[in-house]
Amino acid sequence: MQSLRRLLPVLAVVLMVFAGTMVVPLLFALLGPDDGLLDHVQAMAITFICGLALFIATRSRRSELQPRDGFLLVTLVWTVLPAFGTLPLLLHLPDLSFTDAYFEAVSGLTTTGATVLTGLEKLPTSINVWRCFMVLIGGMGILVLVVAILPLLGVGGSQLFRAESAGPMKDQKLTPRIAETARGLWTVYFTLALACFLAYRWAGMGWADAFMHMCSTMGLGGFAAYDASFGAFDSVAIEVVAIVFMLLAGINFALYFLVLKRRSLKPLWSDIEARSFFALMAGSVLLVALFLLAHGVYPDFATALRHAAFSVVSVATTTGFATVDYAQWPMFAPVLMLFLCGFATCAGSTGGGIKLIRSLVMLKAAKRDMTRIVHPRAVLPVKIGGTLVSNQVIFSVLAFMLIYGSVMVLATLLLLFSGLDIVSSFTAVVACINNTGPGLGQVGPSGNYQGLSDFQTWVCTITMLLGRLELLSVLVLFTPQFWRT
Amino acid sequence: MQSLRRLLPVLAVVLMVFAGTMVVPLLFALLGPDDGLLDHVQAMAITFICGLALFIATRSRRSELQPRDGFLLVTLVWTVLPAFGTLPLLLHLPDLSFTDAYFEAVSGLTTTGATVLTGLEKLPTSINVWRCFMVLIGGMGILVLVVAILPLLGVGGSQLFRAESAGPMKDQKLTPRIAETARGLWTVYFTLALACFLAYRWAGMGWADAFMHMCSTMGLGGFAAYDASFGAFDSVAIEVVAIVFMLLAGINFALYFLVLKRRSLKPLWSDIEARSFFALMAGSVLLVALFLLAHGVYPDFATALRHAAFSVVSVATTTGFATVDYAQWPMFAPVLMLFLCGFATCAGSTGGGIKLIRSLVMLKAAKRDMTRIVHPRAVLPVKIGGTLVSNQVIFSVLAFMLIYGSVMVLATLLLLFSGLDIVSSFTAVVACINNTGPGLGQVGPSGNYQGLSDFQTWVCTITMLLGRLELLSVLVLFTPQFWRT
Ligand SMILES: [K+]
Ligand SMILES: [K+]
Repeated sequence: MQSLRRLLPVLAVVLMVFAGTMVVPLLFALLGPDDGLLDHVQAMAITFICGLALFIATRSRRSELQPRDGFLLVTLVWTVLPAFGTLPLLLHLPDLSFTDAYFEAVSGLTTTGATVLTGLEKLPTSINVWRCFMVLIGGMGILVLVVAILPLLGVGGSQLFRAESAGPMKDQKLTPRIAETARGLWTVYFTLALACFLAYRWAGMGWADAFMHMCSTMGLGGFAAYDASFGAFDSVAIEVVAIVFMLLAGINFALYFLVLKRRSLKPLWSDIEARSFFALMAGSVLLVALFLLAHGVYPDFATALRHAAFSVVSVATTTGFATVDYAQWPMFAPVLMLFLCGFATCAGSTGGGIKLIRSLVMLKAAKRDMTRIVHPRAVLPVKIGGTLVSNQVIFSVLAFMLIYGSVMVLATLLLLFSGLDIVSSFTAVVACINNTGPGLGQVGPSGNYQGLSDFQTWVCTITMLLGRLELLSVLVLFTPQFWRT
Repeated sequence: MQSLRRLLPVLAVVLMVFAGTMVVPLLFALLGPDDGLLDHVQAMAITFICGLALFIATRSRRSELQPRDGFLLVTLVWTVLPAFGTLPLLLHLPDLSFTDAYFEAVSGLTTTGATVLTGLEKLPTSINVWRCFMVLIGGMGILVLVVAILPLLGVGGSQLFRAESAGPMKDQKLTPRIAETARGLWTVYFTLALACFLAYRWAGMGWADAFMHMCSTMGLGGFAAYDASFGAFDSVAIEVVAIVFMLLAGINFALYFLVLKRRSLKPLWSDIEARSFFALMAGSVLLVALFLLAHGVYPDFATALRHAAFSVVSVATTTGFATVDYAQWPMFAPVLMLFLCGFATCAGSTGGGIKLIRSLVMLKAAKRDMTRIVHPRAVLPVKIGGTLVSNQVIFSVLAFMLIYGSVMVLATLLLLFSGLDIVSSFTAVVACINNTGPGLGQVGPSGNYQGLSDFQTWVCTITMLLGRLELLSVLVLFTPQFWRT
């Protein structure tokens, strides 16, 4: 409870800043013919007043944060902000339930991009801007979370994620350290975002569309302004831009520091995780393209490659845009894609899932034990890209993977228990825990999460949150040790 | 290759003993009106002659086995024996392909119990006796493998499985040590088998049925002499006997040593794995019974409990008998059952899957890391039932689990790639790697593996073998380190 007291003023500030971000959809409402204006003004006012009231009520208790406060803070931010993020939706769509609106807002801020809405093209642009803009904000938050906060907390092997550029941090206070890292990351993030925005515009999107889909792309979110997602554009140029920026957003943003500092693209290639990421993507795209061609899904290789490249990169980077209903492809392809989304993105990106680096650690640890069977007395260090991985990090990653698996099983059983079919249940959980968005079956690329019951929606909401906050940072709050002392 | 030379005479002896076991179906063929007699005589002769020829050709090279030879030996035994185990089937059923016959024999000797045959009741009793007897032999082999051989080899944390009674083994030679442990285990195994046989007879089965289903029960195999499996009997008494002996065969056989030595049932209860096993079974049965009642699948609690108890125990102990088509139940129940079969049986039993002890080690290791997040500097040993678990064992278990997961994913993708539907693909792999037998969909309790293509059948066959031989003991053969030196 001490912890909560220290955190409430911080949360209040975050809330007021969040209210400030609502100016973006408001501007779109002012610019265009748009009937969402009043909703955004009200939402912004309510959010700001709540933040201000909380700040006034709690500011006297301000004191320096401690590392452990991070766990509670990230959980508070990612559960409280979506509650206010629902306001524009609830005000504009009076029939929308809070359960569904909260799902939508969590989906945005966790960059999952699963939606409960249909008829997106009939919504005011400003509402769609708000949905997509939440993804951009979520992506920013995640970068700070995984690059600056989690490594300090030692969650699930994320000590590994500390990039070269970060340097020692022992003697510094928490807040300035995080702020400094965040500034650097966001500079890169917004530079790329601007490039993506201009590229979409150049490829033929309107200004508003370019802005919205840039937000969704940079956050690897997957919200679109059309029910048909990227299928609505049917443009190779737009798809190529999307693929390029999904790939760029899927690698560790800290690497871009190095690229800028050294004025060379070499860091991208010398990083084992980024290299594995590009190789995995290229290999999977080629495999799926050949598979689709062999099964006669598309008449020629060029068409097969076009659709395979977009869909594989979209799902494997946990983005979730769709140009075609890939659930209609022979099942091997979509299942492979969903499998990839579990681990294909890099740590320090805006993508979800286990992350490639954790998979590499696990693979190397397993390989070591295979060798140990043959040479029981050998001393075998685990190394990733030349760096020694300590046993403690391996154990952290192990705990992470085990809890990841357990949450998946438990959530799937809960959905089955509530009556959802087996394919929808399992793939909804995979799509939510990895913050991908579309699954298969009822929640596939041509369907959405609208048909779920309230109970099922909450299971998916909690799964998205757990996945986004790297599981342990939330679950540790439920251990008695956390609250003792 | 040195290793292979030392092993071939051993394999030859094993093959001749295997030929000897073919006397059992032969006796059944002699006793009853049965047209399988000649097939069994031929199969026995071929197997014995092959074994003898191999022995004569290789006996001059006999030398003391070394621990590492164990890997190659178990893989050889479990791939070569089924090839000869197919003979009675191939001779009697000329239309049966070798692929299918080999699947059936591997299914028996790995105690999986998945079948490619239909019209079982029309087969001669002696053929069904051979199918079931292979399960009993397989069960015996597995007990020696997991209690005596694997702990010496240090595979996948199975050092843990060394029961109290085993004592130190450093200074002893390999062969007498294994032989001594095997004798003790088999005494217990055949005592229980006799009790099971008499109990089935008492409950109303005929002598031949009692023998066959005893074999299948003790090995947790799941082969039956009827297409309808245990549904053919429709007898509560028989189902109760089956449940009791499936549970008895699902715990560590080494515990029965202690029960006999101390003349007390206390060791069963003081063993944390056995206790968890019973608690898990009781809890799951009750949960499924209540779930079925709530969904109106059965009209009253007694009926729901009867069918839930049989089906849950049958699948969770990796046996795979069926009294009803539980694939028709709301999906939560069969999926929960299949999930349980992945880890519910105890190490040192004839059951398949990860084993409870490994799951307990992983859970405790994960729990330690949750605590470590809050107390980064705490020294936290992992203990199971008061015994310290070394980091090396935790790493072994980790490697095991990771390879287990990877094989499952890979095999599922291969089945999907070959065109099988998603539910059948995934559950076939779960049912094969855990040596359970029936999955869902096409390979569910009312269907079988007959409809699979040759490619799909081979994927399942290899998955059964990998699961049975605890993965690492086979896969280590594919590392270059194994063959070096
Ligand atoms: K996404
Ligand atoms: K079985």
